Amino acid sequence: MINRTHDPELRSWIESANAPGCDFPIQNLPFGVFTRSAEGSPPKVGVAIGDFILDVSACVQEGLLDPSPAADACDESAINRLMARKPSALSAFRSELSDALSAAGSVGERARAAASRILVERSDAVMSLPAEIGDYTDFYASVHHATNVGSMFRPDNPLLPNYKWLPIGYHGRASSIVPSGTPVHRPSGQTKAADAERPTFGPSKMLDYESELGFFVGRGNALGESIPIDSAWDHIFGFCLVNDWSARDVQTWEYQPLGPFLAKNFATTISPWVVTSEAAEPYRVAALARDANDPKPLPHLSSDEDARYGGLNAFLEVYLSSSSMRDKRMDPVRLSRAPFNQMYWTVGQMLAHHASNGCNMRTGDLLASGTVSGPENDSRGCLLELTWRGTQPVTLPTGEKRRFLQDGDEVIMKGYLEADNRPRLGFGECRGIILPAA
Amino acid sequence: MINRTHDPELRSWIESANAPGCDFPIQNLPFGVFTRSAEGSPPKVGVAIGDFILDVSACVQEGLLDPSPAADACDESAINRLMARKPSALSAFRSELSDALSAAGSVGERARAAASRILVERSDAVMSLPAEIGDYTDFYASVHHATNVGSMFRPDNPLLPNYKWLPIGYHGRASSIVPSGTPVHRPSGQTKAADAERPTFGPSKMLDYESELGFFVGRGNALGESIPIDSAWDHIFGFCLVNDWSARDVQTWEYQPLGPFLAKNFATTISPWVVTSEAAEPYRVAALARDANDPKPLPHLSSDEDARYGGLNAFLEVYLSSSSMRDKRMDPVRLSRAPFNQMYWTVGQMLAHHASNGCNMRTGDLLASGTVSGPENDSRGCLLELTWRGTQPVTLPTGEKRRFLQDGDEVIMKGYLEADNRPRLGFGECRGIILPAA
Repeated sequence: MINRTHDPELRSWIESANAPGCDFPIQNLPFGVFTRSAEGSPPKVGVAIGDFILDVSACVQEGLLDPSPAADACDESAINRLMARKPSALSAFRSELSDALSAAGSVGERARAAASRILVERSDAVMSLPAEIGDYTDFYASVHHATNVGSMFRPDNPLLPNYKWLPIGYHGRASSIVPSGTPVHRPSGQTKAADAERPTFGPSKMLDYESELGFFVGRGNALGESIPIDSAWDHIFGFCLVNDWSARDVQTWEYQPLGPFLAKNFATTISPWVVTSEAAEPYRVAALARDANDPKPLPHLSSDEDARYGGLNAFLEVYLSSSSMRDKRMDPVRLSRAPFNQMYWTVGQMLAHHASNGCNMRTGDLLASGTVSGPENDSRGCLLELTWRGTQPVTLPTGEKRRFLQDGDEVIMKGYLEADNRPRLGFGECRGIILPAA
Repeated sequence: MINRTHDPELRSWIESANAPGCDFPIQNLPFGVFTRSAEGSPPKVGVAIGDFILDVSACVQEGLLDPSPAADACDESAINRLMARKPSALSAFRSELSDALSAAGSVGERARAAASRILVERSDAVMSLPAEIGDYTDFYASVHHATNVGSMFRPDNPLLPNYKWLPIGYHGRASSIVPSGTPVHRPSGQTKAADAERPTFGPSKMLDYESELGFFVGRGNALGESIPIDSAWDHIFGFCLVNDWSARDVQTWEYQPLGPFLAKNFATTISPWVVTSEAAEPYRVAALARDANDPKPLPHLSSDEDARYGGLNAFLEVYLSSSSMRDKRMDPVRLSRAPFNQMYWTVGQMLAHHASNGCNMRTGDLLASGTVSGPENDSRGCLLELTWRGTQPVTLPTGEKRRFLQDGDEVIMKGYLEADNRPRLGFGECRGIILPAA
């Protein structure tokens, strides 16, 4: 439901929030967990606005926000308690935040006067993981990605018969999810070259990123209950960017018959700001239209509303910066830009499928879409696809070639929600630099 | 290291602990989390002894145990804080518990006098999950199970080339792990018969159990660090039984290419008592000897100590009771008894492998062995194998046939550590009854 927090004309008294290209205009208001770098203060929940973070509990102290369970839940080191609030309560809270940051109105006026006490510069803050993540599930919802990868791993059988009937997913590792900016050691693992007689153990030679959209569960479901597809969005608190780092050589050797394991669980990086479902509302679009030959989804994955409205007009971008590029003060180079509205399965279908057997979702659980790749060559969301398993290296502005990631490479993911006549909402950044194997 | 708590001659002043066949003699002392059914008291940590639970915090109040971080950690609703203690501190704590429960010595004398205040009858208590489980990983370490199942799913290729090089594992779902006694709804899911043109959605028709040994991580490792195989046991706090319920028809259709997902994550049942690594120490045996044709494990999975000492002389049993058997007051029938010392991979190898890429283990993480099947027909740890995918039904004492589980069936798992001239240590029970699909 579109409300006054979505008004495209709204402006903030914080000028950087009104600048074109800013990730965090007043229509966004994503939640995250920050610590002021200078102080020894504990982490707490804030809202990104322009170049700043709004300190929610400071706003309550200043009388700019009414005390409420939602506001109270921001005085914690994770947003889980906030996420568990009803959508209507979250919506009311978001309206209050919007008023406090608005260039119009008396609350905004008072907030501006209190700016030095309620704002923290983003560059002065350290961001933690936004939520305590109980379980992490990764899907495989881009048919372009699945077809590309399938044709490399199983040339005779790229897209398996189940793909268009259900959103394929698997469980990932929650312990190794880290916030943007955390360096990632190149993993070691067991690999076997196709022509080798036996495997060996050592640093991965085919380290890759995967650019994905993550979504957090707000209210969960009890064990044994399902989530009907038309209720799925009520259970989605919001979105973030996910880099599902992958060691392709480890994956090739280990993944049969039970799926990826050590190839993925050494690290998963997420962006620290959670863009709420409510903020994303005006950017919802029709789900990808099925081809005439595609099966109609079974009833528990099928809904007119989801077909009309279950897509998301998001774009995910991947940038790379090698250490040599940084030495030469070159900007990171963009490797890809992928449209999320080309995903075969919607987030509603993924969540409804996940709970269709009675599996319980808990507040703070993270689900991710799988690599977001579009139909074009420059919309492929991982190096495996971009370089076609290393056979077509990409060339960096320095002339360096990349088949897979080298030590010192930094991967920077960005993402945006876009709609005509509306400000672009950004997800912020999801960054990680590769360190040599430990 | 064997110490006085392992003395096979030790007896407790609690007579039921000395009875032959008792799961919980004084040499066992497993930890669990209990609530007295009659009272509104909060859950806390106890120790199983004979037919009773020793209330650890009550013992501290009575002056029978010295206040210590380990004892203090028992005044909580999960054993995580206890698990994170150093092995030496846990060993000292276990010695104190042994003294308090011993039929000899003055502490035992005083404890006996306080019996009514420090003991709870097990039948008067409700057991919760012992630990907060951050991540749950399931392995596939029985070569007999892997060969049997592989030959059904991939007749041309039963044991994949990677099997004998690394312990295959995958991530399971932590949210749906439930304690013994929790009823389990038959899951619904998408399945496709081999001869059907399209899949359908409905209650699973091939619901199965899997009998596994679980092991809990005590002290973890930091992200980016590995766990050398010779240190693995220092990180294992203890053991429990695991029933990895599996919907085989769902699994067959969904598992490629990313592994089991909804076929498994609707429920996993564990026994509530954690038998410590220290209690298990005298039951460690040589790992399964490799055949002449088997590859020698790579260095990170290979150790003389693990080969000599990394096996565990445990036996896992599965019993079934149908509702008709219960109506006729028949005892549950034993379906299988499987030797854990026939597993291809040791628990040390599984843990070392899991962390070999730097994946961080956290205190309370649960790892499970995968179905424990031995080489004999009656040592097969799931119905899929026992009935050879339903083609050879088992006959219950009522004359009923079982290919897979029916509504009303109760599955009861038991397990034991056995050694010559030592008391048998039991894991307690892991029970679950199947309710109709929700």
